[in-house]
Amino acid sequence: MAGKRIGQQTILLPMKPAISAGAACVGPKEGEGPLGDAFDWVTDDELCGQQTFELAERQMVLEAARTAIRKASLRVSDIQFFMGGDLLNQIISASFAAREMSLPFVGLYGACSTMSEGLCLGGMLVDGGHADHVVCVASSHFCTAERQYRFPLEYGNQRTPTAQWTVTGAGATVLSLSPKTSPMARITHVCMGRVVDLGVTDANNMGAAMAPAATDTLLALFEDTHTTPADYDLIVTGDLGQVGHDLLLKLMQEQEMPLCAGTYQDCGLMIYDQKQDVHAGGSGCGCSASVLNGYLLPKLQSGQIRRMIFMATGALMSTTSSQQGESIPGVAHAVVLESPVEKGRM
Amino acid sequence: MAGKRIGQQTILLPMKPAISAGAACVGPKEGEGPLGDAFDWVTDDELCGQQTFELAERQMVLEAARTAIRKASLRVSDIQFFMGGDLLNQIISASFAAREMSLPFVGLYGACSTMSEGLCLGGMLVDGGHADHVVCVASSHFCTAERQYRFPLEYGNQRTPTAQWTVTGAGATVLSLSPKTSPMARITHVCMGRVVDLGVTDANNMGAAMAPAATDTLLALFEDTHTTPADYDLIVTGDLGQVGHDLLLKLMQEQEMPLCAGTYQDCGLMIYDQKQDVHAGGSGCGCSASVLNGYLLPKLQSGQIRRMIFMATGALMSTTSSQQGESIPGVAHAVVLESPVEKGRM
Repeated sequence: MAGKRIGQQTILLPMKPAISAGAACVGPKEGEGPLGDAFDWVTDDELCGQQTFELAERQMVLEAARTAIRKASLRVSDIQFFMGGDLLNQIISASFAAREMSLPFVGLYGACSTMSEGLCLGGMLVDGGHADHVVCVASSHFCTAERQYRFPLEYGNQRTPTAQWTVTGAGATVLSLSPKTSPMARITHVCMGRVVDLGVTDANNMGAAMAPAATDTLLALFEDTHTTPADYDLIVTGDLGQVGHDLLLKLMQEQEMPLCAGTYQDCGLMIYDQKQDVHAGGSGCGCSASVLNGYLLPKLQSGQIRRMIFMATGALMSTTSSQQGESIPGVAHAVVLESPVEKGRM
Repeated sequence: MAGKRIGQQTILLPMKPAISAGAACVGPKEGEGPLGDAFDWVTDDELCGQQTFELAERQMVLEAARTAIRKASLRVSDIQFFMGGDLLNQIISASFAAREMSLPFVGLYGACSTMSEGLCLGGMLVDGGHADHVVCVASSHFCTAERQYRFPLEYGNQRTPTAQWTVTGAGATVLSLSPKTSPMARITHVCMGRVVDLGVTDANNMGAAMAPAATDTLLALFEDTHTTPADYDLIVTGDLGQVGHDLLLKLMQEQEMPLCAGTYQDCGLMIYDQKQDVHAGGSGCGCSASVLNGYLLPKLQSGQIRRMIFMATGALMSTTSSQQGESIPGVAHAVVLESPVEKGRM
């Protein structure tokens, strides 16, 4: 049965590809946060024993990918595609990790939307029978991102109230047509987002730049699938943070498709405690990647969450585009995840 | 009929997705080259009338995409995915072009392999029925790449004999399950490559860095499909240039799968004349993208080429990775393209 586009943007995956495993590796600050116990691996060293922060980030990608593959009871050679990306110029975390894995590499760039970009693409490839197993990865590291996008770490710049804290972490998800283990979840629909830009230019307020894209994708998904927010136990965005979270609630209200405050959450607000001085919350590809793979997938597997929308959001600017006066385009890709636990069987 | 993996890396596309149209836009130097007449649009202004070279590159992406969609007798709204990338940090040429197109965006990063990465992924998505029509784009611009990767343009640095010249150009390909026009070619197989790194560290010798990856992918494709170089009218690599071209011939000879000098070509050697002072040849995502879409697709459509391998190659380093002493990993993705003209009907 072929994949089927329903409506304008959403694609139904008739084979319901399985998430056979997920793994998350995070840094010390994330380990001290409220979800600390959920992660597979918490390093107490931002450098992970490496010479540079870039090598540390790569190490986390490798650790997450290998752990996820192992948890799926697969060998590395069972995987057809190593898909993913990160925030660094030329996605060096993913591509150098791919060199170590020696697997066909699908390099992605969706900024902080990379985890769901990978799940959308990987889901369709598995659904179409083009791959039996794929691994999707995404990562970020506070120290690599900060010095690339903002200021040298040693400068110790002050952060504005709307600024977010880049998560040090990596997540990996194994998608399978015929999983060797009991699946953690299944992907039923994917909805790849359009690039939306309402003119925000403040690189310290990514949440506001990304919320309109999140609204655009959510509205398309609801319309295409004839569902409303009430049809999902959880709708989770990637890293809108406090500003973007509140703005998304407002925008969806204006569109007469209000999200329920109880079932709408943002990974950027889940991963840190307010006491951790992260201002508007967490951000980075690794934010949604580690929260999904460490914290959310087990809840789907147990049936505590029956059906959810995972939608990571990305801000697609570069330092060059910002210096040239461009505003910040946003994008949001969504997947609908279902628990493998059948209704009434809990 | 579902996509089928044959062998270790190659995937057979049973639906044979059609290339319904292609378009190529290039700069003045490329227009003066031996393929100048093949391109849809040759600008005589490196800035394309824009304020910055980055805006000029984006303009070429948009022009190529819109032209290809028009040539495929489609409207922009008929396209499901706008897929692609470029060499700039955070692929701003592709993502800001996607903002203008208002289409679901699949951001890719495969360095100069981006055109074939897009064709592989887009081919599988169309084959699986997950999209009716997609547009794949890739671009580069001498002035944006040079100042990002090497030196400020004003510095006027000397170029080594192994250095290549980044092509100013963009290419776009429309893939369709049911094309509205007579197809230019069909994709029968895709083979996504592994990241291969034999330790080359000279950023002025990309050809040598990428040739081992090209060898790896070609060998996998031949083994998986039980074919040899003699089964193809043409095998074309993306931008190995003279050094990489000669090295690939040598490596394939060593592997006892020699390429025929007559049927193996490299887009980097096709796009410029030796008199144009480009040293080892052309490079950049836009090199293979413009040669495929401007020059090669019409030859497939007419039946002058019956079956060919298009394999763009990428060097996956960043300035950071090079400064940190890393070698340059290469990757090569291949698609097998067939002419729509049946045998014996020419």
